[in-house]
Amino acid sequence: MKVTVICIGDELLIGQVIDTNSGFLARTIAPEGWEIDHTEIVGDNAADITDAIERAFMRTDVVLTTGGLGPTADDITKPVLCGIFGGGMRFDKSTERNVEEIMRRRGREMNELTRAQAIVPEAATIIRNSVGTAPILMFEREGKTLVAMPGVPFETQEMFTSEVFPRLLRKYTSDTVTAHRTFIVAGLSESNLATHLADFEASLPEGLHLAYLPRPGIIRLRLDGHAPDHATLDPFMDSYASRLRSEVEHWLIADEDLPTAAILLRHLIDRRLTVATAESCTGGNIAHEITLVPGSSEAMLGGVVSYSNEAKQNLLGVSGELIAAHGAVSIPVVEAMASGARKTLGADVAIATSGIAGPGGGTPEKPVGTVCVAVAGPTGICSTTLHLTGTRDRIITRATSEALLMAIGAVTAL
Amino acid sequence: MKVTVICIGDELLIGQVIDTNSGFLARTIAPEGWEIDHTEIVGDNAADITDAIERAFMRTDVVLTTGGLGPTADDITKPVLCGIFGGGMRFDKSTERNVEEIMRRRGREMNELTRAQAIVPEAATIIRNSVGTAPILMFEREGKTLVAMPGVPFETQEMFTSEVFPRLLRKYTSDTVTAHRTFIVAGLSESNLATHLADFEASLPEGLHLAYLPRPGIIRLRLDGHAPDHATLDPFMDSYASRLRSEVEHWLIADEDLPTAAILLRHLIDRRLTVATAESCTGGNIAHEITLVPGSSEAMLGGVVSYSNEAKQNLLGVSGELIAAHGAVSIPVVEAMASGARKTLGADVAIATSGIAGPGGGTPEKPVGTVCVAVAGPTGICSTTLHLTGTRDRIITRATSEALLMAIGAVTAL
Repeated sequence: MKVTVICIGDELLIGQVIDTNSGFLARTIAPEGWEIDHTEIVGDNAADITDAIERAFMRTDVVLTTGGLGPTADDITKPVLCGIFGGGMRFDKSTERNVEEIMRRRGREMNELTRAQAIVPEAATIIRNSVGTAPILMFEREGKTLVAMPGVPFETQEMFTSEVFPRLLRKYTSDTVTAHRTFIVAGLSESNLATHLADFEASLPEGLHLAYLPRPGIIRLRLDGHAPDHATLDPFMDSYASRLRSEVEHWLIADEDLPTAAILLRHLIDRRLTVATAESCTGGNIAHEITLVPGSSEAMLGGVVSYSNEAKQNLLGVSGELIAAHGAVSIPVVEAMASGARKTLGADVAIATSGIAGPGGGTPEKPVGTVCVAVAGPTGICSTTLHLTGTRDRIITRATSEALLMAIGAVTAL
Repeated sequence: MKVTVICIGDELLIGQVIDTNSGFLARTIAPEGWEIDHTEIVGDNAADITDAIERAFMRTDVVLTTGGLGPTADDITKPVLCGIFGGGMRFDKSTERNVEEIMRRRGREMNELTRAQAIVPEAATIIRNSVGTAPILMFEREGKTLVAMPGVPFETQEMFTSEVFPRLLRKYTSDTVTAHRTFIVAGLSESNLATHLADFEASLPEGLHLAYLPRPGIIRLRLDGHAPDHATLDPFMDSYASRLRSEVEHWLIADEDLPTAAILLRHLIDRRLTVATAESCTGGNIAHEITLVPGSSEAMLGGVVSYSNEAKQNLLGVSGELIAAHGAVSIPVVEAMASGARKTLGADVAIATSGIAGPGGGTPEKPVGTVCVAVAGPTGICSTTLHLTGTRDRIITRATSEALLMAIGAVTAL
């Protein structure tokens, strides 16, 4: 079953907001064998929205829109939908009650604009939005369905999962099922990996396909399968997935699609080890990535963001002489930070970074992008100096993933 | 001048990768009065890519594609472009030399797959990619231009800014200019703000438009203007922007589009104050948001991620009795964390959080989403308990922005 996603809003076209709804929708429908055919992003413009919806109905039976349902004048999706599906607008008492309840829960006053959320297209079936004021609108035409959802990611996520998708699943049964298996490898380039896997890739039967998804320091390998039903697909997927697994075993760091921090945590928890961080240039991002993972408190004890030299000395016990002799961005200091964090936080493993994320602060000897990383563990310390390029954001992100990968290497070697 | 963006890749349609290129392109072209007409995301499928490109040329003279140029078998954009613009493929020696140089810089070996990056459509003008192996391909047809760029955000960002956009600007002159002014307000709902601004909005002349962009805890108000030239537009924009500014002055926290952490830093640096963090449930995200801002070291001294109770005691001096009496997620403990961070790190202002981000760890008295926040400053401490909903990720993000907003409130009140 294929669907089209149309994201509506000038804020998306001018790059002030990034669309995350279509990715969420894709991941949510995939397990049922549903796929996004294509996604379109259009502005708050009646002709463009209408054109996108009419074209979408030529390709897919289900069209999902997000955005443009708010109470302000720039949100024009509701009148546009009246134009497409016929009929005028009506006042919906049940939506008004829902809006009142949501506003009361948020401790906000009702006003005329909020009340206008209850003005809905006559042609729409209303699905109550339990987490926001804009109602979800469902339209049908010649066996095809359009569902208009809010642009706020949290509301769309909550309501699509709990209400919209279950209704669509009752109405449409898919004639193909799909499956995906992801393996994550580290330590070789995409092209070397592709050369290594050329024979495997050539051997794939129809309906199976291999995709390479490189991310800094790692490559995600995704085996995609399509078939009429799971009885046909699953044995094929199992057999080729296990062949793929053994082909890449040497570089494998995870056999499912997980963030790098979640892979580290899994290896730590498997070995009943705890972890701590000591971050200078990554500024808390390593700790943030680790603590984003549900259940991370099982291994994560805490960390220090030692932006100033005083913080390195007072919280991590790095000696002032060491900093004076080698500079804060140096292997001796980053190793002392890792050892200090291990000790102060009582952790088995500690990850430390010290570097120059830019745009200022670079010198000829230590240009912007120079980042020292150390991982201290029960059997010793390993460290390295990275030479990264790009913006501050990119240097922080790259240094974070390299440090997490280094920690995975250190933990799996224990 | 309007352009269409087409993002190519199955990984985008299945939600494994989020498109950030189109947002970057939009922000980069906006100052020159260029705009994205619409963005389309299509899979690695020849018919869909061809269809999207042909339709794009019916609407805009410039089409930008990202993705699908890699060296692996799932990247099919190059043969598809041969189909559209005619001609076959050729081997480009200058691209081969560039690939060799990039691989040498990365310390990787050349192989046949990497070398295949040098096989390019005959119809394309080649733009050397100085930061990656896939060349940028520029095609022309009947006065219209298509530029195919890699999907890797860093490469597209670097090459679009330095090479592609300057070439497009020389070729096409825009017949309208645009301008945007953004004001950020906090402390009232979108609908109350819209009611307050109804008269202002009704008074806007043609070519000026007001957009509401709510984010957790704040609303960004964006005044958009279009006119034939800057001499016409700028005085209008200045006058209406200054009227808008005075309309929202009471709730204004920034008069340009900045991340919340950057707004806090600006207020801190204006007052020559330093800041530190003590994070439990936000796990380093507040420190990360602050240190993402270039120049943050002017005010940011560091922070502690005190995930375990031991870390709260050892690094922040929170007494074990206090934790035992009130629990780690409590106003007394979060206030002690803030005071402790202020003292340990020697900062003027400290921001602390302690809460339950879930999915586990909730109790009937303190359910998932309960987050205590405190800001300690030279004149005292303020604190509050948030009751947030949603996923772990959302609770961490919301708690981070609420804590930063509370700190802005505390700092501006000094």
